[in-house]
Amino acid sequence: MNILFVMYDQLRFDYLSCAGHPHLKTPHFDRLAARGVRFTNAYVQSPICGASRMCYYTGRYASSHGAQWNGFPLRVGEVTMGDHLREAGMDCWLIGKTHMKVDAKGMARLGLTEESVIGARQAECGFDVWVRDDGLWGEGPDGFYDEKRSPYNEYLKSRGYSASNPWASHANAGVVDGEIASGWMFQNADLPANIREEDSETPWLTSETIRFIEQAKEPWCAHVSYIKPHWPYIVPAPYHDMYGPQHVAPPTRDAGEREDPHPVYAAYMGNKIAQAFDDPEVRAKVIPAYMGLIKQCDDQLGRLLDYLESSGRMDDTMIVLTSDHGDYLGDHWLGEKDMFHDPSVKVPMIVFDPRVEADATRGTTCDALVEAIDLAPTFVEVAGGKIADHILEGRSLIPHLHGTAEETREFVVSEYDYSATPICEKLGLATRDARMFMVFDGRFKLIHFEGGFRPILFDLKTDPEEFRDLAKGSAHAAEIDHLYGLLGQWSRRMSQRVTRSDDDIHEMRGKSGRKGILPFLKDGSEVPAELTEKYRGQVQGDYTKPEK
Amino acid sequence: MNILFVMYDQLRFDYLSCAGHPHLKTPHFDRLAARGVRFTNAYVQSPICGASRMCYYTGRYASSHGAQWNGFPLRVGEVTMGDHLREAGMDCWLIGKTHMKVDAKGMARLGLTEESVIGARQAECGFDVWVRDDGLWGEGPDGFYDEKRSPYNEYLKSRGYSASNPWASHANAGVVDGEIASGWMFQNADLPANIREEDSETPWLTSETIRFIEQAKEPWCAHVSYIKPHWPYIVPAPYHDMYGPQHVAPPTRDAGEREDPHPVYAAYMGNKIAQAFDDPEVRAKVIPAYMGLIKQCDDQLGRLLDYLESSGRMDDTMIVLTSDHGDYLGDHWLGEKDMFHDPSVKVPMIVFDPRVEADATRGTTCDALVEAIDLAPTFVEVAGGKIADHILEGRSLIPHLHGTAEETREFVVSEYDYSATPICEKLGLATRDARMFMVFDGRFKLIHFEGGFRPILFDLKTDPEEFRDLAKGSAHAAEIDHLYGLLGQWSRRMSQRVTRSDDDIHEMRGKSGRKGILPFLKDGSEVPAELTEKYRGQVQGDYTKPEK
Repeated sequence: MNILFVMYDQLRFDYLSCAGHPHLKTPHFDRLAARGVRFTNAYVQSPICGASRMCYYTGRYASSHGAQWNGFPLRVGEVTMGDHLREAGMDCWLIGKTHMKVDAKGMARLGLTEESVIGARQAECGFDVWVRDDGLWGEGPDGFYDEKRSPYNEYLKSRGYSASNPWASHANAGVVDGEIASGWMFQNADLPANIREEDSETPWLTSETIRFIEQAKEPWCAHVSYIKPHWPYIVPAPYHDMYGPQHVAPPTRDAGEREDPHPVYAAYMGNKIAQAFDDPEVRAKVIPAYMGLIKQCDDQLGRLLDYLESSGRMDDTMIVLTSDHGDYLGDHWLGEKDMFHDPSVKVPMIVFDPRVEADATRGTTCDALVEAIDLAPTFVEVAGGKIADHILEGRSLIPHLHGTAEETREFVVSEYDYSATPICEKLGLATRDARMFMVFDGRFKLIHFEGGFRPILFDLKTDPEEFRDLAKGSAHAAEIDHLYGLLGQWSRRMSQRVTRSDDDIHEMRGKSGRKGILPFLKDGSEVPAELTEKYRGQVQGDYTKPEK
Repeated sequence: MNILFVMYDQLRFDYLSCAGHPHLKTPHFDRLAARGVRFTNAYVQSPICGASRMCYYTGRYASSHGAQWNGFPLRVGEVTMGDHLREAGMDCWLIGKTHMKVDAKGMARLGLTEESVIGARQAECGFDVWVRDDGLWGEGPDGFYDEKRSPYNEYLKSRGYSASNPWASHANAGVVDGEIASGWMFQNADLPANIREEDSETPWLTSETIRFIEQAKEPWCAHVSYIKPHWPYIVPAPYHDMYGPQHVAPPTRDAGEREDPHPVYAAYMGNKIAQAFDDPEVRAKVIPAYMGLIKQCDDQLGRLLDYLESSGRMDDTMIVLTSDHGDYLGDHWLGEKDMFHDPSVKVPMIVFDPRVEADATRGTTCDALVEAIDLAPTFVEVAGGKIADHILEGRSLIPHLHGTAEETREFVVSEYDYSATPICEKLGLATRDARMFMVFDGRFKLIHFEGGFRPILFDLKTDPEEFRDLAKGSAHAAEIDHLYGLLGQWSRRMSQRVTRSDDDIHEMRGKSGRKGILPFLKDGSEVPAELTEKYRGQVQGDYTKPEK
């Protein structure tokens, strides 16, 4: 069986019609949901691209692999999904974005270069690369944000877009009076992108995916990783005007959230992103563009599913649709992601398993708490490998897909390191104190902050919109203690014993005696003679009288 | 300046005359203490050889590097003392024992072999090897416990000991009626070892150390790592009868410790090691041998110090004397180490700094809480390097040595993973639940156990001998909560962000704008034109009308 692991970037869990969006119609997401399982409580391990993806790709928590923010390199030698799958006999390919930053210093210390296959995989987070495109080809006075070659810009130039950086001037800009109107600016979000729709990023990556599958040696795992609907918020025609202000839901926010807010939350409410999304004009332009980008993703998903059906691959390919995090879009007086309200940390997760064992669950939803790190062990099981649970911290989703799940996770955890952000400086925090942790048990969500702040507590049963911070008062000390107990248990987890499996340990036990380690014997009668005879009758030949 | 980092194996903190032992005279340990600082509250990060040493050698806690028990390989790529020192321009050599197990699978995954310098250092815990001898050449029906070549056995054979395994039949055995009387058996502990004293392990390694220094290129760090006074408990003449039963202190134990003991403590009290040390005859033979082994270590230290003085090396060499853990010797109804009473987890630590800055503290003791992991950053500072505090979790001891210390550690932590021991099976624990953690704040010592057990609490102010487990009752709930808070804080520490230093993070901040990442602009007026002009005036040449 093959695995098509599709990730969208910054796709909210509730911006799909199968998830109940009132205006956005996503028939192709819905079509796969109708044939698979849609997980309604799937949480990412960090609400930021790079860290979340490293969790997906390693099957480990952010504080286990250490790449806790965008641009923090994944340490050389960290075992990835690709390493596990290749060990199980399945190739693992990348088509699109990873946000992986190579641990150049670690590579140099170990004498590895990207010229070797081993080094190249270390530099690409364990993937073999069909095409790598992180989708942010911004350029400024100090040069390009992403210094790698840009396959997408190369494609655009081959298609006749002769600008120096057509990603910026065409795919992510409109035109007003013959002048570029950059997609970076919200005022331009309602313009059609200055590009033929079929040349825009989502169709291009879909074409690359079909090209890959047409020639791929089976079994394969393909990580198809789209940059959209991530900002810049601008989309080509006809998607730019499919939705308008009348389709923009009012922000999910409450005046009470701004009364005596937690200091870190207050700092985020005060940043320029939140300010922008507080402006109704911005939301009226940006959210329709965001919806148009998702609609384009859905159409391209339909194109991909049609190809898989016509080629027979739907019969032997597991398909996963998910995202690296959500987007506040003005909810909770915030923009972007970064914190732990559901619009940011909860993601869509639809899994289609073509096997007959999954027939019983087709078209169902699963409300169990699941984590992004559960995909890696799921894929290892699909590949027929043994799940290295001393390395992989997630749990296979197969029991949920086959209707055989007995125990489910008691709680999910997500982490965020904001030490590289202006908020850290604004709050005057030491870098290692600019960290927050979420523990959610299915009802109560605790957010712990390093740096001496009080926690935040939400009760999603009585307050599903997460408006009321119950940690302000003392009425919920018991729930807070309970969740801190879970956080402590999680924090003491064994995450680094990666060189010894439980089987290895069982194998080690009681072996040293038969290798001559016989401590604490009174006279040797405690053990069989065979273990001690090595020290008998060897001596006459070379007896050495100790000198007095 | 050079560094002589001397480690003894299983040397108790209180078996030195400078530490107040009533019978054992160690004039050479005392001689160095008189010229340096003796730390009276030095704790190892795990009371077991391999794990403790990996903490010393990485400057990181056991759960940070993952090599949590003997024979758990240190993951490939883990940064070691040797890596840090070489980066600072100092060589780092091994003379003796490390208990390092190579991460063969990780090496293979990265294409590393021990034939290369890089691979050899990965396989030797970052050291360049003058001589590696882990000192346990036991042999049984399944072969040798240690499958490496044995430099010490080779030495003995070159000296005319022609037995197949002279380590076993001569260095660690006596002779009775012309037959080997193995040192594994306590009944033989009072026999003289069947070897010339100058050929025994401690003098041999001392000679290797002098040979190393005579030819070493400065600056060097030499880790001189003796196997003794670790078992087998047998010592050559004249040390075998320097001490007798009259010098054996009664065990530090109390009948109350056996009343309703903690289940894990009870299991350890019930093992064969504890049973053996419960026998007065065993203690009467073993402890004098243990003392004789220490006396021999002291004489060889004197020989080494004399050499350093005569060669001028005392003027330009920092000297550290310490141990990887202690030995219960029957205290608390226990033998060996494994748990967290002071005789097991507290170690001797004497540091001599020849520089004038250290004159103010010569001959003093320091009661500050210090950890074994503090040595690595101390050495990096001595080598003139920048302490990579995103990797190294210890703190330099230099401020204590130079009398400039302002803040000291609030608490120390030690960990023990007993999943590979029979106790784990006896208690019916899952491997990952066979772990315990110690948090000691200088007065209260909390021991947390995974697996659902209650904790243990000692108050060393009112109960310095650690007889009374205050966690049995509810009177100390506040202290227990406080120490659990410290454990939680420690457990959430940032231990894996090893690819990004605080400086790197400060350097990252606010850089993306000048590289063309300009999200969340309303109209661009929020930023200087220079950041946005890249998207202006480029377009006429290749304007592409979006298709409708």
